[in-house]
Amino acid sequence: MENAYYDTEEPIAALATPWGESALAVIRVSGVGAVELAAACFSKSKVLIEAKSHTLHYLNLVDPDSADLIDEVTVAVFRAPRGYTGEDALEIYCHGSLAGIRKILELLKRVGFRDAKPGEFTLRAFLNGKLDLTRAEAVQEIVTAKTRKAHSLALHRLSGGLYKRISELKQLLIDVIGKVEVQLDYAEDEVFFEEKIPVEKITAIRQALTQLASTYQIGSIYSDGVKVALAGPTNAGKSSLFNLFLKEDRSIVSDIHGTTRDYIESWISVQGIPVRLFDTAGFRESHNEIEEEGIRRSSQIIDQSDLVLYLVEDYDEVDLDAINPSYIYIWNKADIQKATAPKGFFPLSTITGEGFTRIEQELVQRLTQHAACSTDQDVMIDSLRQKEVLDRAVESLGVAVDAIDQGMPLDIIAPELQEAMNALGEITGEVTSADILARIFSGFCVGK
Amino acid sequence: MENAYYDTEEPIAALATPWGESALAVIRVSGVGAVELAAACFSKSKVLIEAKSHTLHYLNLVDPDSADLIDEVTVAVFRAPRGYTGEDALEIYCHGSLAGIRKILELLKRVGFRDAKPGEFTLRAFLNGKLDLTRAEAVQEIVTAKTRKAHSLALHRLSGGLYKRISELKQLLIDVIGKVEVQLDYAEDEVFFEEKIPVEKITAIRQALTQLASTYQIGSIYSDGVKVALAGPTNAGKSSLFNLFLKEDRSIVSDIHGTTRDYIESWISVQGIPVRLFDTAGFRESHNEIEEEGIRRSSQIIDQSDLVLYLVEDYDEVDLDAINPSYIYIWNKADIQKATAPKGFFPLSTITGEGFTRIEQELVQRLTQHAACSTDQDVMIDSLRQKEVLDRAVESLGVAVDAIDQGMPLDIIAPELQEAMNALGEITGEVTSADILARIFSGFCVGK
Repeated sequence: MENAYYDTEEPIAALATPWGESALAVIRVSGVGAVELAAACFSKSKVLIEAKSHTLHYLNLVDPDSADLIDEVTVAVFRAPRGYTGEDALEIYCHGSLAGIRKILELLKRVGFRDAKPGEFTLRAFLNGKLDLTRAEAVQEIVTAKTRKAHSLALHRLSGGLYKRISELKQLLIDVIGKVEVQLDYAEDEVFFEEKIPVEKITAIRQALTQLASTYQIGSIYSDGVKVALAGPTNAGKSSLFNLFLKEDRSIVSDIHGTTRDYIESWISVQGIPVRLFDTAGFRESHNEIEEEGIRRSSQIIDQSDLVLYLVEDYDEVDLDAINPSYIYIWNKADIQKATAPKGFFPLSTITGEGFTRIEQELVQRLTQHAACSTDQDVMIDSLRQKEVLDRAVESLGVAVDAIDQGMPLDIIAPELQEAMNALGEITGEVTSADILARIFSGFCVGK
Repeated sequence: MENAYYDTEEPIAALATPWGESALAVIRVSGVGAVELAAACFSKSKVLIEAKSHTLHYLNLVDPDSADLIDEVTVAVFRAPRGYTGEDALEIYCHGSLAGIRKILELLKRVGFRDAKPGEFTLRAFLNGKLDLTRAEAVQEIVTAKTRKAHSLALHRLSGGLYKRISELKQLLIDVIGKVEVQLDYAEDEVFFEEKIPVEKITAIRQALTQLASTYQIGSIYSDGVKVALAGPTNAGKSSLFNLFLKEDRSIVSDIHGTTRDYIESWISVQGIPVRLFDTAGFRESHNEIEEEGIRRSSQIIDQSDLVLYLVEDYDEVDLDAINPSYIYIWNKADIQKATAPKGFFPLSTITGEGFTRIEQELVQRLTQHAACSTDQDVMIDSLRQKEVLDRAVESLGVAVDAIDQGMPLDIIAPELQEAMNALGEITGEVTSADILARIFSGFCVGK
């Protein structure tokens, strides 16, 4: 691929595991001649050079200039076209030492590797036909998945779920295009003119694509998560509700980060939806400058939230006429059995946890209510790129159907069908410009 | 090994890479029957069960109960007695997804693995005779090495440098003990009595052990690092000197962490010595409470430092009679060419950097001056345990030499020699109690 950003001719190297002290770290190298190039850094170069694909070797990494031992490592050898990238490649399993990782990466650069750019290994895998573009995108979605559900959805895409669905629809469209092309070729002879254009088939494909595009809304909720803020007067029990959310092992990160003194936040999983939950400072009249600043920041968080859980102990305090439809109002009452919650309020005891499950259900329903599909869908998209390309295909097919309805000539209809076909090819990566590829892969982590 | 802390009969599993989103993560399992146990989690169980040692397999991890796909992974198979632990073991190279790593670890626990405790893989490697105790300790020292030099020293121990040195000395001691034992056996017959006990040999071994024990001081400087504080009046140029230290790519961590508003600190490497460098608040009279608190904390840091670099612009301010021998006094002067530094002061221009190299040399010399050996030594120890055991051996040999000098009977001398022999066995781990092992390995990282 000719591209200012990614040069696919060069051998590349990168740390594939997080930067930190640990038992093991993995350094990846890939490229034409990568094994021979890296072999210069090992005590038994010949073992590596002669190694077959998918073999493991326990070797010493040695500085070829000073003959200093750099590390004792295990090396996995992959030979083109096998392995992740489809190129000759090594995975070096070394000690998880920061000083050691630095030495190894420097050594690899000295013998001719360059630092891999984000997503460059997966880009090469894509360019070498190891995975299509939907699967390549899924690789990064798996890494950044915030909940088990998000992880499963991305994994399904990696297994080719989306690719298969797109391929099926492409096959249907190819059949239609085939019929139209035949008629175009023979149109002058008017031989086949009696055969109608299968407009129902086009409509069916269009519907299927529309449905797939509509999964973006819920797909992106699972992959990007949503912001939910707890709000309400001081001492209404917001922190208790925050803890109820964290308690039942829903917390994604183990510790709660207090980013400022004004609010605390935590990523939690609510029925598989990644929720970034904020506990804001309470609202009250204040003449203290620092407290006012806290309240101002809390207001900002509330404004930027997808949903607000508004908690009160005394519901008379709430102006029911001014109720906000994107809020869920909660009445925190120690003994909810003996009281009836006012209309529009969900009763909750932050002491016993009673009422919590109902609030959680409401939260999930509100977050997913505008999504046109259920989360039981097999195939979902979560990439804006895929959504936009699907929208383009849907539009072209719409134009085609209208043209047929209006009895327009075939040479007006055929290009629209072809345009839809190209769009589907863009999703899987058969027809994709280098710029678009660079944009997709630059969002990846390094080493992937 | 019978031990409350480590049960070596159980199959264990652990994440061996840092906990964070990344391209790859590595999960390790080990134990008798570990491959068969783990095989239940893979789509092609048979492939794993029949796999030979040191082979790689691309497989699907699947929940055996729900049949849900958990991840697409590469698996390395190691068969006893080969591989790191010397037991049947797998390394699972999975996507570096937090949700995914959680799922895999839970699944492994469900099929019968338990979470590995710190250092448990290396403990098993030791117990299975894959490495002696000096090499096992070196594994963790490599991981936590803070500079290249510290990394090289630990790596040399891993390669068996220390083990070899101890083994040589043990062999010499065995020869001596052999001679003494023979005389003990025949003492009653007074046959061999003319042969003298080789006291010079014992003295030579004792000297070699003393020398080795003395490397602890410098070895531990390299592995644990030292604290150095910059002190002096406000505006004397401390921050400029701090930056001079960081500038020439000496910084170990890429960013400077301001832990409090009172001082900043950074780990840097000064000729291979890991130095935790503190830039403290300036000293000046203050009636501001917050500033006073800052000065109080700075004083604490200075008290806890191994060395202080005291910087002034105007050396008249320093009371030369009250000079502190553990300080290095620096005179910060824009143009050091035109001035002569007063006695006891190192001249420096924080603007041009002139004089900096000399200060760095002085720093290294002061830090290492009490060390009895140079850093060019091949074999160094950095473990307090090794130091204490060496000291015991040296003491026993001293008692033995004294006893010989005083013409004491052989049955007084022999047990002292044997005691020294046992101590050397403790260093390499031939004679080591389960409690000591637990203490050593509990300081390791999990997954190592």
